[in-house]
Order: sequence, then structure tokens, then C-alpha cells
Amino acid sequence: MIESKDNKKIKYLNKLRKSKYMYIDKKFIVEGRHLVEEASKSGILLETYSINECNYNVPNNLVAPNIMNIISNLPSKVDVIGVCKFIEEKNTFGNKMIILDNVQDPGNVGTIIRSAKAFNIDTIVLSIDSVNKYNEKLIRASQGMFFKTNIVVKDLKYFISYIKNEEYNVYGTDVVNGVNIKDVNSSKIAVVMGNEGTGITKEVKELIDKNIYIDINSECESLNVSVAASIIMYEINKGE
Amino acid sequence: MIESKDNKKIKYLNKLRKSKYMYIDKKFIVEGRHLVEEASKSGILLETYSINECNYNVPNNLVAPNIMNIISNLPSKVDVIGVCKFIEEKNTFGNKMIILDNVQDPGNVGTIIRSAKAFNIDTIVLSIDSVNKYNEKLIRASQGMFFKTNIVVKDLKYFISYIKNEEYNVYGTDVVNGVNIKDVNSSKIAVVMGNEGTGITKEVKELIDKNIYIDINSECESLNVSVAASIIMYEINKGE
Repeated sequence: MIESKDNKKIKYLNKLRKSKYMYIDKKFIVEGRHLVEEASKSGILLETYSINECNYNVPNNLVAPNIMNIISNLPSKVDVIGVCKFIEEKNTFGNKMIILDNVQDPGNVGTIIRSAKAFNIDTIVLSIDSVNKYNEKLIRASQGMFFKTNIVVKDLKYFISYIKNEEYNVYGTDVVNGVNIKDVNSSKIAVVMGNEGTGITKEVKELIDKNIYIDINSECESLNVSVAASIIMYEINKGE
Repeated sequence: MIESKDNKKIKYLNKLRKSKYMYIDKKFIVEGRHLVEEASKSGILLETYSINECNYNVPNNLVAPNIMNIISNLPSKVDVIGVCKFIEEKNTFGNKMIILDNVQDPGNVGTIIRSAKAFNIDTIVLSIDSVNKYNEKLIRASQGMFFKTNIVVKDLKYFISYIKNEEYNVYGTDVVNGVNIKDVNSSKIAVVMGNEGTGITKEVKELIDKNIYIDINSECESLNVSVAASIIMYEINKGE
């Protein structure tokens, strides 16, 4: 039983909270039974830390409850934490993609991943400068859908050029004078959502030839990015 | 110029951060130029605290920058804070309402208020046990729409009975075997959204005779409440 926060393994867990070390070791942490179970089902769970015996067919480290409270990042108490290996990114993208260009809020991105599964979107693409894909808040906000969706990180400059060659219709979302989302009907479609404050980057805008919009009251400047993305995915899904 | 955090007025601002004191004095705080301006336009701004001279036609208190950093709740620096009086709740509700039954996350409620203005919803109703209407995160997430929407706090047991008498169609949202939201067409409509974890309370369920659902992939259990509410409002608005 691990009883000291100076234990080597506990120190390693703390390091793994930082994006840099996640990417060096290609590992990330999930907290709580629900997410540990989802990680286990996905075959990426490497080891667990828990206050009671548990069996996910991977090595378990028993941890004293006070140490668990220290290593957990959550306000509510958890009884198990899992260390997972990075999920392999599939390079087949399906017919429907949402591309997130420098979207920063982990709650927004997690919510978009949750809606993407709900509305049968095949792939979520994160630009390199978007929030870290393995951010814990992002994974929690996805309500487990993180493990059930193909999420890839790409340099959008090259990626968008590539998918245009592959005959995807690539739509932007930052203007009102485009096509109403209700009237979009493409079999291969990718929609770019921009940063919460500044929208789609100039570099990416130059690669987009069409824009779509959601019809809203002019007193309201814009929708929350996870709401806008979800309504677009809802409409794309209906169009199938 | 206020230079001490022990200043009486600064102590009062700290008190006003707590729901209890907000409701005793019927006052709340907003931070940053955008929200202070919106409060001023709405005629509810009572006084400001700022690091530079400013003029919103209400008394201003000059504050030393280090004190401003202490009294602000935001991670980024703000140069003005406003004290506002509570907004009068209108008892005419229009034809379209969203009712929030014990919804707790201020970000979710703020996002719903933002979408409500976008989709021409007349009134947002918060149950008494939902998050405090004047929560700062809620106001920020609404992106200023908080000041442009009728938001009322009600005891739902009485309120839903009342609006049923007034010939509103009151829909619940917690099941899949109801009416698809696409097929709903009511001229007077109120839709109840439940708590993030536990859904609509038993007491309220008993008052509802119809349910609506959004068609989603069965691998995904549910949508985020602000996303679900926004898609419902989007569809209700189109139906007009």
C-alpha cells in the first residue's frame, strides 16, 4: 500500500498531469470508475491506483485514502485512477468531420466530442494549437465518448489541402453571408469551427471556399462554439 | 483612491460575492467593461470601482491596481467592476419558454440564456433550487444576453400548473419515447430541461403530460443540457 506522497510512482503521476510529460511518455490519466472502465474496454488501460482491491486485468497499486485525495484532481472523492496509453489515431476519416481550429476551452471540446457521437460524425480534427486532446476536463466533458470517437491532431494547413483533394466539401463558420446550414447537402463534408474569441485563423480561412451559418437573432452576436458545432452536426446528420 | 483591502467598501464587495448577501441587498456584481456597459444600458448599474477615471453616470470609486486584482474574481486583469441592482422580473412570458428544473452548472445556464436570445425565446424560468441567477460565471457565459432576456425564478409546482391553465403546451425532455422535436408545432410552448445528472424531478414530471426527444445515436446516452436546450430552441424557433 502506497502511503507517502513522496513515493516514486505518486511523483510520476503528478508529472503525467503536465501536457509535456504526457506527450513524452504517450500516456494520460483518467479518474473515477466510469472513465477507468471505458479505458479498459478500449484496451488502452495500463495500470490502476485504487483505495480498494479492483480488477481491470492490469497491475493495480493500492493507495491510502489520504494519498488518493492528494493525487486526485477532482473535488469529489474518487476511488480509482487509471494510467492509459495514447489512443491510436485512425487515418480513415469517414464522410463527416468537424475541424476545431485553435479551440481552447476543454469543456467546449469535450462537449463537441459528446455531440459528435450523438450525431454520427466520424472524425474530430484538432489543430495543433487547440487544447491538449488528453486534457482531463476535456475527457470528462465528453462523458466517455472520448473513447468512442476518432480524434486526430493535425496541422490544418496541410490537412485541409489534403481533404480538399479527397473531395470533401470544407465549410467555414465565421460569417453570416454563406449558406444556411439547413440547406447544406454534401455527402463528404468537413466543417471548421474557430477559436472562442477570435474565430477561424487567417491561414485556415484562405483554404476555405464556402461558409455556412446558423440563423440567429441579430441582438445575439454569436452562439457558444460547442452549441454552434452541435447544431451543425445535428443538421448534417439529418441530411444523411 | 481606495488603497487598502480592509476598506469598508471593499469588504462590502466581498460580502456581495455570496448568494445570501446578494438576496438580502438585492444587488450583484459584474466585472469588466463589456458587462458594466451592458448593465449601464439596462439602467441597473448603481456604482463602479475602477483603476482609472470612468463615467457611466453613476458614482465611481477609484481603486489602486493591486486592490483591484484582489477584489476581482477573474484570472485576467479587469479595470472596472460594477455593482448592480437586481433586474425586475416580468410576469408576461411570451409564447416560448424554457424551464430549468434544478440545473446547477452556471456555464450551462449562461449558455442556455445566450442561445435563448439567439432563437427568440421569450422567457427563461429557473426553479428555486437551480443555480443562483446572479452567479458571476452564469452572467459571463451568457455573453451579455443575461441583460436582454426575461429570466424569472419560480416554484415550478405552482408555475407549471399556472401556465397549463394559460394554455401553454408543457413538454418534458427526459425520455426517448415522446415526440421528435422536429415534429413539435405549438404556438404556446414551454419545455422543461432537467438537472445535469438526475434529470427532471419527480414532482415536476407528474405535471408534464408530453415529452419530446432529440434523435441521437444510441451509443451516446445523452447530450450536454445546454446543447440539448439549444437544439430544442433552434427547432422551436424554426417552427414559427
